[in-house]
Amino acid sequence: MTKQNSYAVPPDLLDVVIVGAGISGLQAARLLRPNYRIAVLEARERVGGRLCNHRFANGETVDIGGQWVGPGQERMYRLIEELGFETWPLYDNGDNLLWDRARGRRYQGTIPRINPVALLDLGQAMARFERMARSIDCSAPWTHPKAAEWDQQTLASWLQRTCKTRRARELFAIGIGAVFAAEPEELSLLHALFYARSGNSLETLLSVTGGAQQDRVHGGTAGLCTRMARELGDDLHLNAPVNSIEQNADGTLLVSFEGGVLRCRRLILALPPNQALRIQFSPALPARRDQLWQRMPAGSCIKCVARYDRPFWRDEGLSGQVTSVEGPVRVVFDNSEAGKDSGLLMGFLEGEAARHYSGVDPEVRRRDVLDCFARYFGKRARTPLEYVDRDWSSEPWTRGCYAALMPPGVWTQYGDGLRDADGPIHYAGTEAATEWYGYMEGALQAAERAVQEVRQALAECAPGAPAMNLQVRELPRV
Amino acid sequence: MTKQNSYAVPPDLLDVVIVGAGISGLQAARLLRPNYRIAVLEARERVGGRLCNHRFANGETVDIGGQWVGPGQERMYRLIEELGFETWPLYDNGDNLLWDRARGRRYQGTIPRINPVALLDLGQAMARFERMARSIDCSAPWTHPKAAEWDQQTLASWLQRTCKTRRARELFAIGIGAVFAAEPEELSLLHALFYARSGNSLETLLSVTGGAQQDRVHGGTAGLCTRMARELGDDLHLNAPVNSIEQNADGTLLVSFEGGVLRCRRLILALPPNQALRIQFSPALPARRDQLWQRMPAGSCIKCVARYDRPFWRDEGLSGQVTSVEGPVRVVFDNSEAGKDSGLLMGFLEGEAARHYSGVDPEVRRRDVLDCFARYFGKRARTPLEYVDRDWSSEPWTRGCYAALMPPGVWTQYGDGLRDADGPIHYAGTEAATEWYGYMEGALQAAERAVQEVRQALAECAPGAPAMNLQVRELPRV
Repeated sequence: MTKQNSYAVPPDLLDVVIVGAGISGLQAARLLRPNYRIAVLEARERVGGRLCNHRFANGETVDIGGQWVGPGQERMYRLIEELGFETWPLYDNGDNLLWDRARGRRYQGTIPRINPVALLDLGQAMARFERMARSIDCSAPWTHPKAAEWDQQTLASWLQRTCKTRRARELFAIGIGAVFAAEPEELSLLHALFYARSGNSLETLLSVTGGAQQDRVHGGTAGLCTRMARELGDDLHLNAPVNSIEQNADGTLLVSFEGGVLRCRRLILALPPNQALRIQFSPALPARRDQLWQRMPAGSCIKCVARYDRPFWRDEGLSGQVTSVEGPVRVVFDNSEAGKDSGLLMGFLEGEAARHYSGVDPEVRRRDVLDCFARYFGKRARTPLEYVDRDWSSEPWTRGCYAALMPPGVWTQYGDGLRDADGPIHYAGTEAATEWYGYMEGALQAAERAVQEVRQALAECAPGAPAMNLQVRELPRV
Repeated sequence: MTKQNSYAVPPDLLDVVIVGAGISGLQAARLLRPNYRIAVLEARERVGGRLCNHRFANGETVDIGGQWVGPGQERMYRLIEELGFETWPLYDNGDNLLWDRARGRRYQGTIPRINPVALLDLGQAMARFERMARSIDCSAPWTHPKAAEWDQQTLASWLQRTCKTRRARELFAIGIGAVFAAEPEELSLLHALFYARSGNSLETLLSVTGGAQQDRVHGGTAGLCTRMARELGDDLHLNAPVNSIEQNADGTLLVSFEGGVLRCRRLILALPPNQALRIQFSPALPARRDQLWQRMPAGSCIKCVARYDRPFWRDEGLSGQVTSVEGPVRVVFDNSEAGKDSGLLMGFLEGEAARHYSGVDPEVRRRDVLDCFARYFGKRARTPLEYVDRDWSSEPWTRGCYAALMPPGVWTQYGDGLRDADGPIHYAGTEAATEWYGYMEGALQAAERAVQEVRQALAECAPGAPAMNLQVRELPRV
């Protein structure tokens, strides 16, 4: 049911309202707050967005959302340090497992040992993909000479043509599942290339040590967000989903949310596109913006964690990392926290598997996931002390992970408007990043860019604009 | 801003609330109303959805939205007759024009006269497409033996492989633009095949006489909706966009809209997916439903009509129909109403052209469209008595036309849930049709199916359910 506004008259004028208290919105708030009057509106009862801690019965916590940082993510390491947090490297010793035809084969590094023909095939396809990805300008993928060609086909079509063996295609698709939480047919080839390039390379995105899965954060990535939120005090409004954003004749914005309304000069939307789409804009946003968001669905991922008394698989020289052709859990990691006793196995249900298990009885899901763990690591894995999973597609304020995907035709038809402000409305969130799109690092980069835009816009404010000394923090607060 | 509810206590219990007063929602209302207590909620100040009349200064009207009916659309012809409306055949005499390299070549029928190699190529591609389309079961495209193969590629990839000549590809793409208001890379091959098959064949969809563009409705297709709405009296609520749908513990639904709240046992959503996505459901709909809708963006179309004192092109033996390789208006029809003096030329900006012209100054758009008309029909076409266009992507309650598109991977990953009710929530609208998906006929077919589901559900109502004699109309009305 709709609620009555708690304001009878338009409220005091803020400089910036930020919608969404994920890591991107919080970073934007943090950067702007020393100089501007701001507010952050968050739909949930918690901050963090796609980052979230789960607390086990024994008091230990685990990231049940985004969790990794790795080399090249300089903003993230800086933030972690600034906030006084520490990282540890994911356990990456011992042998990985390739599970196939009901048995596991040990291997080391990113690429499993498979028969030489398939291995060569996979290696060639990856090399070709990387070569193409390196040629992409991530700030404008649509300007690439081959943008039209690459954007009119799916990654699946490209794999079909490029890989000679089914095995190479299967393994490539598992990697894609792990990186995108989607099937190769859901992605434009151009988007896959852009995405890989935005995080340096596909190999970087697939790797643990030296790659995107290298480090974890003690206290959880959501802990970073909680810390950032604490700095905001009353400027942060939880349980405040935004219903509508209205532009007034004087150019200011009226932001209506459950429980109130705020007025501001500039707005930063730090939301994934599927959430931004739900807000009613008046006047409507340009059609290209709206249609772009209609074309950016989120991936599908269920993150599953089992806690054991100790990481027993290490005794057998296993890393805990699995690549499984058979699934439904195709990718597994040792998610144990350094310095804690518990052993944690973490597996992803991604793409098609996530869609299937999203509609399934949680008990069946648990059983099937633990069956996978038991196949990979022996029957001891079937009886953890605790089990938890999170279906991010079912979270009403996320509705899919890890990030929004671009099907074919979107980058070339709509991409040039992806990050541009629409008047006083600016875009943050990892989907507005040119570096590390889909990652926390991208969320920070997009926030910085949006903040820069807002600073510039407020500085350039014409003299005829509503009187407001932008640099003064002592003005009465809303 | 949110508004206060006009009801302090939950309102009386209706049997069915229908959301959306397009032709699908209105048909559902019409079928249910004799036996059930219903209400229809419509966001706009008018009914008709994607059907809309424009009134010219001289009092004549023209369909500025969906307009055609054709053989095989039996429900539509029946409805037209029942409501006392009449049809006339679109003007389809004289020569069509193929515009290319700055000149027009005359031809007759659906396929232009081009060089024999390209013609053969185009003919073979179309024949192959039709053969594949005929093998699709439109009630379950995902069950086709080749569903995975056809759904993992774009129509563009298929055209690239299938057509040997660029000319054949271009002409095929113009046809696709005309049918889907999209570029071939935006469509899954499987979706294109399904769509064509759901309206019999691609040739049917491309044809005038004997095809989907055969007949028009005097008074406009929106006139049908206005007539249907009149029967509904107070059961129809205009300016009533639905914000949220809440399921109560007793299984009834609370439907909150701007200005009020209704309570009902069953609900029919007769909306395109991009609109349905905006409603807040509590509890949330299953993730697969939500993610499906995230993957069903609307096409892009601007419909442009110029009115002249008479259809002067007919004097030169021209039909008014153009297929243009050069654009931006690639498809033109003689839209004059039989029995009226005015000559109307109607052109579509579709797919990429619609995206471009959506953001362009209306005066520039008008100029460029009339430039096209003048190139095709001589300079007299540059100075119409009146000009009107409608960018359906900019309509806040439509946000794209003609219909929702399926990118690759959607039919096979999500399609089996497209039309199934979610508990008490049933789906109408042309996107829930198995026949004539994307057409008015599909809207009626989906409405009939949803009505059948609702009837059955209400009839099967367990004795423990809220007491209500479903067949009694004399109960107090809300």
